[in-house]
Amino acid sequence: MAGTADLKETARIEAFSDGVFAIAITLLVLELRVPLTQPAPLLPELLRLWPDYVAYLVSFVFILIMWVNHHWMFQHIVRSDQALMLLNGLLLLGITVVPFPTRIVALYLSTPNQSVAAAIYSGWFCLIAIFFNLVWLYASRGGRLLSREDAASGLAEVITRRYRLGPAAYFVAFLLAFAWAPASLALNLLLAIFFALPREFKLPARPRRT
Amino acid sequence: MAGTADLKETARIEAFSDGVFAIAITLLVLELRVPLTQPAPLLPELLRLWPDYVAYLVSFVFILIMWVNHHWMFQHIVRSDQALMLLNGLLLLGITVVPFPTRIVALYLSTPNQSVAAAIYSGWFCLIAIFFNLVWLYASRGGRLLSREDAASGLAEVITRRYRLGPAAYFVAFLLAFAWAPASLALNLLLAIFFALPREFKLPARPRRT
Amino acid sequence: MAGTADLKETARIEAFSDGVFAIAITLLVLELRVPLTQPAPLLPELLRLWPDYVAYLVSFVFILIMWVNHHWMFQHIVRSDQALMLLNGLLLLGITVVPFPTRIVALYLSTPNQSVAAAIYSGWFCLIAIFFNLVWLYASRGGRLLSREDAASGLAEVITRRYRLGPAAYFVAFLLAFAWAPASLALNLLLAIFFALPREFKLPARPRRT
Amino acid sequence: MAGTADLKETARIEAFSDGVFAIAITLLVLELRVPLTQPAPLLPELLRLWPDYVAYLVSFVFILIMWVNHHWMFQHIVRSDQALMLLNGLLLLGITVVPFPTRIVALYLSTPNQSVAAAIYSGWFCLIAIFFNLVWLYASRGGRLLSREDAASGLAEVITRRYRLGPAAYFVAFLLAFAWAPASLALNLLLAIFFALPREFKLPARPRRT
Repeated sequence: MAGTADLKETARIEAFSDGVFAIAITLLVLELRVPLTQPAPLLPELLRLWPDYVAYLVSFVFILIMWVNHHWMFQHIVRSDQALMLLNGLLLLGITVVPFPTRIVALYLSTPNQSVAAAIYSGWFCLIAIFFNLVWLYASRGGRLLSREDAASGLAEVITRRYRLGPAAYFVAFLLAFAWAPASLALNLLLAIFFALPREFKLPARPRRT
Repeated sequence: MAGTADLKETARIEAFSDGVFAIAITLLVLELRVPLTQPAPLLPELLRLWPDYVAYLVSFVFILIMWVNHHWMFQHIVRSDQALMLLNGLLLLGITVVPFPTRIVALYLSTPNQSVAAAIYSGWFCLIAIFFNLVWLYASRGGRLLSREDAASGLAEVITRRYRLGPAAYFVAFLLAFAWAPASLALNLLLAIFFALPREFKLPARPRRT
Repeated sequence: MAGTADLKETARIEAFSDGVFAIAITLLVLELRVPLTQPAPLLPELLRLWPDYVAYLVSFVFILIMWVNHHWMFQHIVRSDQALMLLNGLLLLGITVVPFPTRIVALYLSTPNQSVAAAIYSGWFCLIAIFFNLVWLYASRGGRLLSREDAASGLAEVITRRYRLGPAAYFVAFLLAFAWAPASLALNLLLAIFFALPREFKLPARPRRT
Repeated sequence: MAGTADLKETARIEAFSDGVFAIAITLLVLELRVPLTQPAPLLPELLRLWPDYVAYLVSFVFILIMWVNHHWMFQHIVRSDQALMLLNGLLLLGITVVPFPTRIVALYLSTPNQSVAAAIYSGWFCLIAIFFNLVWLYASRGGRLLSREDAASGLAEVITRRYRLGPAAYFVAFLLAFAWAPASLALNLLLAIFFALPREFKLPARPRRT
């Protein structure tokens, strides 16, 4: 059973992580370039920057989904220790860097460098998905940092199996980048939407901890 | 009736949204350009950038008003589900992008591209207003995520009717951009002030939930 | 007496304001330019940018002091209304803009434009101090949004008299800019330190609200 | 014993500090440059920027460790006063500036200016470690702002001795910069990992305050 101090501890990790997620998702806008074409018509120039908008959208939805899942994962993690803080820090490192590959893919998607750019982009998402799994595996292995009921219920195994999909799916997107870069980006978007949609499997499974 | 877990859930959505609002409103300052005119007098150069200041002011007040209304809307929404989180995410997407059209209108308001720039600006605000209505309509339709008293009181319909004004008003500003761009920007400022001013109609209507 | 809903209300204004203060104070670092002098020695180039560092320091301490005072002011304000939110929004507008005059004074302090730059800088701080007083005067006039004990104790008048110093002092710094710009900046630094130092007068006066 | 008002006070300092830490750690990404090499292959250009990535990693881990320690330090500090707020403000000043030396070391690590760049980088970390010690020494000296049990337990002295290592270690990194800049950066990374790893000495010592 988790004491008050433990819950306060995870609350602070959550609050700090929420802050990092919120800032990273908002900083993405700084990568949207405004073209400087004083005499020429503005609209065609803006439309030519479509890779910026697609990259923005995919990265935004990706960080949002990661936040939703992070938040939900920490409804099951009720204790904290040093290793969890470090693994969570690794995950946050991954999230804060997202604007960087976003800029890369936006700049190079319509150039001969598009495969490298898309591979870096999808590869980075794959890495983040791995970090996410590390946090969960560390916390849930043997029910280490879960509540007693969660540890006993077998829910952890269901979640573990589900989360494992992430790295695999993003690895496919990574490989796809070398075949056709836009398809890799499109798969990223599809994955974000897919991970956004269904999550009802857990709600009936057990009452949430209050 | 909402349980503790539900309230905690909406509290986290609110906190994350608040963070995004606070960051987006503060990032606007990065769009204010300092002119580089070492020998020439600084003041005339600064004054020539008046579109920057007007665009800053309008966007700041717009995000502030959106925050006030978002915050107030979530005093009535007491439960959360997956769809609400996604619709709210769509609204946040709209808010985080605001610095981008702000930069566009600041750069192009005194150029031949002013109509396109102002149309993008007002059009984006219109889209945000639509997203805002989607969140509210989803949450309030049939009292889905409201408290029992709110669902019964008929207040939801009053609010729904009021919120509907937003997209319509910003659509007028969007159309106005093609006639005369500065007028569109001026209407945006007026709308922000108008939405800021009156809201007393609800306070006497019923006691707030505590 | 303030009800729970009111206290929750001011808590959210405080949290949002805290976010804006924290972001604005951290964004200042983006104004620190790194000189690009690959072959030439780096250190002299860095030292030549001393106006950047002075401006950074003054703005940082200014925002920090404003945060401390804002935070302390809201220990006395226990109710909120629409007008308070707008006046507080005006104050936040002032705070978020601070990186802009900071960049101006950093760029132009060692140029012939130094007086205009320093006047804009001190003038903006004067404006913020006025906004701060507006928030306080609105909330404290007749004890409008204070707790019953604060309204009765006469403490409000003591605070009002004290806060009034701010605009006056920054107006002197504003005037000084036209005589000698560095002196204006130095006065800004002195004022920040002065406002940082003494505030013990209130602690013995009455128990804080809990 | 600390009253409720005092705890609320330190809670707000913590929340504000958390915000600043979260923003500073996320802003680091803006220093990662995307090379503009449209026709040439992208990957070699990206790899040439390895000092950016090393500097990013070291600064990220440094701020993360400082956050963990700050957070942990404030589990022992249960009262606040004006001086603590100012010393903590000094520490936050140090943290917010971190992106600046990070950019310097990233830009100049593979140039003849590498020693100056690395010395500024390590020297700044040394300064932050000193500020951190000032906060702790002020709060713990004579148990001034600690809880009664902490003041009595002798734990404060153990912590004081441990924290003292920080400035000394970073001073060595500072000196090392003049001998060989990359070694100084490597030591920084080692220190961050070292400070991240062990901290179990306190957990058995006493129950944490709840």
